[in-house]
Amino acid sequence: MAKRGIPLAAIERIVKSADADIRIADSAKEELREELERLAVAIAEKACRLAEHAGRKTVKEEDIILAAED
Amino acid sequence: MAKRGIPLAAIERIVKSADADIRIADSAKEELREELERLAVAIAEKACRLAEHAGRKTVKEEDIILAAED
Repeated sequence: MAKRGIPLAAIERIVKSADADIRIADSAKEELREELERLAVAIAEKACRLAEHAGRKTVKEEDIILAAED
Repeated sequence: MAKRGIPLAAIERIVKSADADIRIADSAKEELREELERLAVAIAEKACRLAEHAGRKTVKEEDIILAAED
């Protein structure tokens, strides 16, 4: 498991799904992982606030959907 | 490993980093994973086009940075 959460192997599979013949520099995989984790944290923080706003202590699917709209 | 690439355990760690005391419904983890994979594919597709545009067959860090600006 990657130290920052999302494994580089998962990142590589996602890029290969966009273009099977492309090569990806290790630093590009790291950068995409960091960008995704920034986006994930931003969505997660918003979703936590939306759950609290709705009087819940559990994040639900609807919180993620609303948070991801921004 | 999750079938779609990003493990749910990684998703849960990211949400917990936003709020350590929050609980997360399984369907919310799935939704966040799907949203991140949509974002990842969109950035990866743009980065592949940017690499080709620069006459390369390898995606570099700079392609990811430029692709993620959109």
